[in-house]
Amino acid sequence: MSRASSPLGLHRVLEPPGVLPQAAWRLDPSPAIAPDEVRVRVDRLNLDAASYRQLREAHGDDPDKIRAAVLDIIATRGKMQNPVTNSGGMLTGTVEESGPDSPLSLKPGQRIATLVSLTLTPLTITDGLRSWDGKSEQVPCRGHAILFARSIAAVLPEDLPVPLSLAVMDVCGAPALTSRIVKNGAVVAVIGAAGKSGSLSAAAARQAGAAKVIGIVPNEAEADLLRNLALVDEIVIADARDPVTLATKVEAAGGPADVTVVCVDVPGCEGGAILSTKQGGTVIFFSMATNFAAAALGAEGVAADVTMLVGNGYVPGHADLALGLIRGVPSVRNLFERRVAK
Amino acid sequence: MSRASSPLGLHRVLEPPGVLPQAAWRLDPSPAIAPDEVRVRVDRLNLDAASYRQLREAHGDDPDKIRAAVLDIIATRGKMQNPVTNSGGMLTGTVEESGPDSPLSLKPGQRIATLVSLTLTPLTITDGLRSWDGKSEQVPCRGHAILFARSIAAVLPEDLPVPLSLAVMDVCGAPALTSRIVKNGAVVAVIGAAGKSGSLSAAAARQAGAAKVIGIVPNEAEADLLRNLALVDEIVIADARDPVTLATKVEAAGGPADVTVVCVDVPGCEGGAILSTKQGGTVIFFSMATNFAAAALGAEGVAADVTMLVGNGYVPGHADLALGLIRGVPSVRNLFERRVAK
Repeated sequence: MSRASSPLGLHRVLEPPGVLPQAAWRLDPSPAIAPDEVRVRVDRLNLDAASYRQLREAHGDDPDKIRAAVLDIIATRGKMQNPVTNSGGMLTGTVEESGPDSPLSLKPGQRIATLVSLTLTPLTITDGLRSWDGKSEQVPCRGHAILFARSIAAVLPEDLPVPLSLAVMDVCGAPALTSRIVKNGAVVAVIGAAGKSGSLSAAAARQAGAAKVIGIVPNEAEADLLRNLALVDEIVIADARDPVTLATKVEAAGGPADVTVVCVDVPGCEGGAILSTKQGGTVIFFSMATNFAAAALGAEGVAADVTMLVGNGYVPGHADLALGLIRGVPSVRNLFERRVAK
Repeated sequence: MSRASSPLGLHRVLEPPGVLPQAAWRLDPSPAIAPDEVRVRVDRLNLDAASYRQLREAHGDDPDKIRAAVLDIIATRGKMQNPVTNSGGMLTGTVEESGPDSPLSLKPGQRIATLVSLTLTPLTITDGLRSWDGKSEQVPCRGHAILFARSIAAVLPEDLPVPLSLAVMDVCGAPALTSRIVKNGAVVAVIGAAGKSGSLSAAAARQAGAAKVIGIVPNEAEADLLRNLALVDEIVIADARDPVTLATKVEAAGGPADVTVVCVDVPGCEGGAILSTKQGGTVIFFSMATNFAAAALGAEGVAADVTMLVGNGYVPGHADLALGLIRGVPSVRNLFERRVAK
């Protein structure tokens, strides 16, 4: 490419000019890479669940029409971003060419997964999606995609099955940020500790030197699951939407916590998380159901001097950290394997 | 009171039992205080704007009916929480009795303002609101209110007019958290630097030792205002909802920032704030218009390793810090005085 490249991929934005690739209507997916880009030979798209559902409903479950619709989106937009749901997904593939100035440390031949959304990834499909039956969001295909200097991709490990690695990478921001925040000797509470991001966060807290990990689950069935994981020191069964009960039970289990990690996608957990946390402690909100105002006003309403973090999905090294936990903690690996099998 | 008291005021909750005072339908506003409580002789309620507007509209601007409605709410609920808007407001008054175990350090005779909402403050009115004309949200009255151990109240300083102090206290969380986060030598960007919380945050950043403060405003008129405040080193005029333009201009002005403070109540500023911040830096979101998912996904989409904080309205000492800035920075005081006069 003759144009100067931007680490954010601004040089690939065709319409409208000046916006980020994710906000763009159309990207330039040309295969020639800039010195800081990487070209990937794509073998599979993993469409976002909301996007796939919309496509299926809009086309009456007709595989040919669904296939045609996806092909049309990619050909028109230069990326797989469903114009109705605005969502994308991710892809797996093999590194074909890595520019000399790319900071991603990828080498030709490595099998990778993108951890940034398809909504901002330049993409071309060359096989007409003929290997896809249109019946699931897993799209086997041939084509190429472009990674920018500030894209995020992870090498798929050879010692783990691909679906397992993908499931781990999907939630790897939570354990990575937990690991960064938890100090040696801390009391850590994990709301939703029997889930994917919750169990990894509990394992990360333990690895980071937590003195006590309290796992919070909504019912006896999840408590059993958590007991089998042998990840936490104390199990609290409580409705996380009831602040007083939750905080009382967490205190009885050895809290309040220095760090509380919210890993359940249920609205209304802000107050309970705040109240279960020590003055001077930290709440990490990983749930996309978190309401910003409820958190800000909730803390003020109980004079809680707590640091509240928006769970950033990106922490350098997050995929490696999470995959390391999966290798090192057999019970968590087992939990993921059962969830993936479903 | 014979019951054991709770620092959160749980012992004052009558219906439904077990919830926080803010979530309660009815509180017990009895004047007898527990050892860790404080009783305040109330002289003025400052109703939340949304609540007052609802009352006025529901009662066709009839002052007698509005007065009767407010009296009825307080008599029924033991607190001034509008059941339609769920909002409250704050109050001013004089400390009448301070329990021996109260941690609030208040002395009888001190004039104070509550910095926690009326929605969780036990309240009784004894004068039938006869001094209130019902024509504004400022309600002169007589009665008493109860503060819990974990309530927040600030002594109204004698050297400043009350309306000025109240306006400052209303936004005092922003400069306090800014002051805590900004390190000596930091580059700080303040989005909405010509506003109340923005100008105080810029002054706090300067006081905390920022090497450079970049003020971001949407237009030339606010840039003029900011120039007159002489608070910032660089002024950037940009639409904060346009990430690429904002980040480019902030960079040209000496950024990206180590700390970006978002002080404008406009949706869609998450991406611009993230992109204007250095890798490893911090974004503090003080705008109630912040969208949690937009912040979390926005950072991931550009591989931004930034710490994102939910702006907690409570930081110990926040009112004193902000009032100190008002006394020490005449231009900010002047800005507040003009806003209060409007």
